[in-house]
Amino acid sequence: MPLIQRLAIIGVGLIGGSLARILREKGAVVEIVGIGRGEANLRKAVELGVIDRYSLDPVAGVEGADLVFLATPVCSIIDMVARIAPALAPGCVVTDGGSVKGEIVAPCEKLLPPGTFFVGGHPIAGTEKSGVEASFAALYQGKRCILTPTAQTDGEALRKVVRMWELAGSEVVCMDVEKHDRVVAAISHLPHMVAYSLVNAVGGYDRFSENILKYSAGGFRDFTRIASSDPAMWRDIALMNREAVLEMMDFFSEYFAGLRNLVEKGDGHGLEAFFARSKQNRDAIS
Amino acid sequence: MPLIQRLAIIGVGLIGGSLARILREKGAVVEIVGIGRGEANLRKAVELGVIDRYSLDPVAGVEGADLVFLATPVCSIIDMVARIAPALAPGCVVTDGGSVKGEIVAPCEKLLPPGTFFVGGHPIAGTEKSGVEASFAALYQGKRCILTPTAQTDGEALRKVVRMWELAGSEVVCMDVEKHDRVVAAISHLPHMVAYSLVNAVGGYDRFSENILKYSAGGFRDFTRIASSDPAMWRDIALMNREAVLEMMDFFSEYFAGLRNLVEKGDGHGLEAFFARSKQNRDAIS
Repeated sequence: MPLIQRLAIIGVGLIGGSLARILREKGAVVEIVGIGRGEANLRKAVELGVIDRYSLDPVAGVEGADLVFLATPVCSIIDMVARIAPALAPGCVVTDGGSVKGEIVAPCEKLLPPGTFFVGGHPIAGTEKSGVEASFAALYQGKRCILTPTAQTDGEALRKVVRMWELAGSEVVCMDVEKHDRVVAAISHLPHMVAYSLVNAVGGYDRFSENILKYSAGGFRDFTRIASSDPAMWRDIALMNREAVLEMMDFFSEYFAGLRNLVEKGDGHGLEAFFARSKQNRDAIS
Repeated sequence: MPLIQRLAIIGVGLIGGSLARILREKGAVVEIVGIGRGEANLRKAVELGVIDRYSLDPVAGVEGADLVFLATPVCSIIDMVARIAPALAPGCVVTDGGSVKGEIVAPCEKLLPPGTFFVGGHPIAGTEKSGVEASFAALYQGKRCILTPTAQTDGEALRKVVRMWELAGSEVVCMDVEKHDRVVAAISHLPHMVAYSLVNAVGGYDRFSENILKYSAGGFRDFTRIASSDPAMWRDIALMNREAVLEMMDFFSEYFAGLRNLVEKGDGHGLEAFFARSKQNRDAIS
């Protein structure tokens, strides 16, 4: 028997569309209902065979679903859960793909009526592209998916979500929401803050009355690619994961100040040791 | 008539070897002599047809050369120029590929005997690989090469070096040494300092008693690739371009502190504007 009878996906873009594709490919779902605001995108999703049908109304769309996946911008997840909560079928499992969990999981748990279940999730996958046409079945293959169960999480609901991501090809890791938010602050949010600052600093350096960014070569361009990411999305992430982002920014600043001190002192041994430790750390994850 | 009769290349690795290959391909040189300390590498360079012959002794190697290209580590360039200076043929032009110019150009100019000429240079090209086997003729194609002539620079010598890099496919840009050192501090040295610090900070975060680097995904790995660069080389660069590197680190820190302030205040408009300015800057150089 398929894992999911009726899957409702709210937000049929790269994230939602790719999950739909792989679950259908694996025969893990009987019917997929797409929910969104852009009818052209939803029509396209039906044409592509990504979803079976769609609804512009979330309340109607989740009707009878045994699993709801929220793939909307992270700042809209709580409002969306509040909206669909009264319409959920008994036993329905609601999960999300938001990149911040601390601000989301507890409110969502409170919003759901008894007999329906929330499981916070975050697949660590994506590309620079967006929209259902960018979605593909292999997006989650070999990637990590973090789930953040709490003391309130239903065991059966958790197992269903774990199984879903395993079928998508992901390695599922469970951790508490606080750890999740710090881990992603460190490996994703901090690098974005650093890249955005770096590009603005170099672009703002006007000592020679010309934009020295024009001299940048491939290395700089590769390093700063993430500074092209969507400003509104990163505004929301910075606001919603504020505490962890600040903690990681301060932690980074300590190391950066330590390195500055070595440069200022002209400490060759200290510099080489600092760079060698970093190279060792970096090579270990390549 | 070929541009160069006898080209002596000191350091036949990625940089020196690639220049040799393209100049030979263009028919711009009659004879190429390789100079280095590793005989196996030099033998390999002869086998590959990159150089015609080699010498382990720089003094013997530069004999009769009309152009000498120094492709050794940046901290050894001044010593090498001092060593070869007495052996240079009249009219010989000496140029280099070092990534720092302020500490190098004036001393090298002073070391050369009358009737021989120094031209500081820096081709903005490279890969993570090294050694003559990694060299290829197209390395400089479409890349910038910065030359740093001074009031002492001989016009004919400068024209010869400009022509050489043009034949290699580079876009030649001339600027003074101070500007060069600040431009490369901004677009290359600063990103390295940031990447090295970021990897050490994330690798050093031990609040959860495990190395959270293990959760890093493709984005983090792409962003921190340059933190795998050679520690000894970057120690030398940080020491030799100390003043400009410190200036750029401080300049970056101001922007990073400004962003931190926006996050702390929860200033959504300010955050989005900061990220949007960065995206605009970044997209302009893609």
